[in-house]
Amino acid sequence: MVLTEGGWMDISEPISKSTIVWPGDPQAIITQVASFDIGDNYQLSEAFLNLHTGTHVDAPLHFIKEGKDVSQIRLETMMGEAKVLDASALTVISADWLMTKNLRKGDRLLFKTMKDNDIRQEKLSQMNFIALDVDAAYYLTELGIVLAGIDGLSIAKAEELNETHQVLLKNEIVIVEVLNLTGIQEGNYEMICLPIKIEGAEAAPARVLLRQL
Amino acid sequence: MVLTEGGWMDISEPISKSTIVWPGDPQAIITQVASFDIGDNYQLSEAFLNLHTGTHVDAPLHFIKEGKDVSQIRLETMMGEAKVLDASALTVISADWLMTKNLRKGDRLLFKTMKDNDIRQEKLSQMNFIALDVDAAYYLTELGIVLAGIDGLSIAKAEELNETHQVLLKNEIVIVEVLNLTGIQEGNYEMICLPIKIEGAEAAPARVLLRQL
Repeated sequence: MVLTEGGWMDISEPISKSTIVWPGDPQAIITQVASFDIGDNYQLSEAFLNLHTGTHVDAPLHFIKEGKDVSQIRLETMMGEAKVLDASALTVISADWLMTKNLRKGDRLLFKTMKDNDIRQEKLSQMNFIALDVDAAYYLTELGIVLAGIDGLSIAKAEELNETHQVLLKNEIVIVEVLNLTGIQEGNYEMICLPIKIEGAEAAPARVLLRQL
Repeated sequence: MVLTEGGWMDISEPISKSTIVWPGDPQAIITQVASFDIGDNYQLSEAFLNLHTGTHVDAPLHFIKEGKDVSQIRLETMMGEAKVLDASALTVISADWLMTKNLRKGDRLLFKTMKDNDIRQEKLSQMNFIALDVDAAYYLTELGIVLAGIDGLSIAKAEELNETHQVLLKNEIVIVEVLNLTGIQEGNYEMICLPIKIEGAEAAPARVLLRQL
């Protein structure tokens, strides 16, 4: 399995002014401070963005006061084998459902909650999205998984947002949100997930790739 | 060479309010809009940053009007074998010097311009930094390399900034700037360079890793 063989699929949600963010959070603003259109011979841009915009990693510090920030997450936790689980037929990802999936300590799990023919922007705007409930978070913690990713806005049901995040992050399970798993089937993959290295931040935008095992 | 074997070294410059940027560009601002310190039970941050802050990738659009933006760069160009060349004893990286290095079409080159005992913040603040001159850029273009990275603020000498960038980017050579190559010796490595996927942008912050071949 040589890196240079390629075959990587990009499962990152692009960042632009129209990227859907959590209700109430500001959308990204990208400003061209130099541009060919106004006679400059180069383009130069500045960005304003909530750090949870597009595909991003939540570090423990998001909900744990003395938790690690996003620049302190071990690279090994975010790189290696990952299992994509198709949860798109569910209403919630429960501990009971997870128990049928033969999961193991050290697993990296990516939950696919949208069907390939769903209109993604519409799904991302609805608050009744499919996500982990608190019991599922406790189950994954006891099991000892190391990373939980999802294609929706949040790993946690909206009505249990704080508790589910707290349970996962207290146990240093890395959370990856707003993946784009369109066209990715349930199965085992190799993953690279690299957030940019913002010191002291509870989260950061990330580029995430998958490759068939 | 299995990804999960680990051994990756992080050569990314962290982003914070004190990250040194090009003279005249604004430094990054990271704002906590929710924080444990003010009684919230979570932390939530927003960032304002020039897209050339910390380790970043320059896409053709930086200097080429109809050039590809950073979200359109092929992943394969930024992942695979890379050669670190120690240029720290030079005053400029010239075509003549490059000709002695047995370079080949398809190479990814990372130029180390700082010595391991240099004070990095000081070096990043000086405008007489070591970088490619225009002739070197033409030579690399004719050779057909695909990526040129450097540990300084710019791949190009300050006095030839525009022309050198134009030569490289017109030929779709991916530029990576502000790497941190402290402790990395000249030699051959495997590299992963992943900029975040900002649509329409001429550049984006990136996480960059090296591993011994």
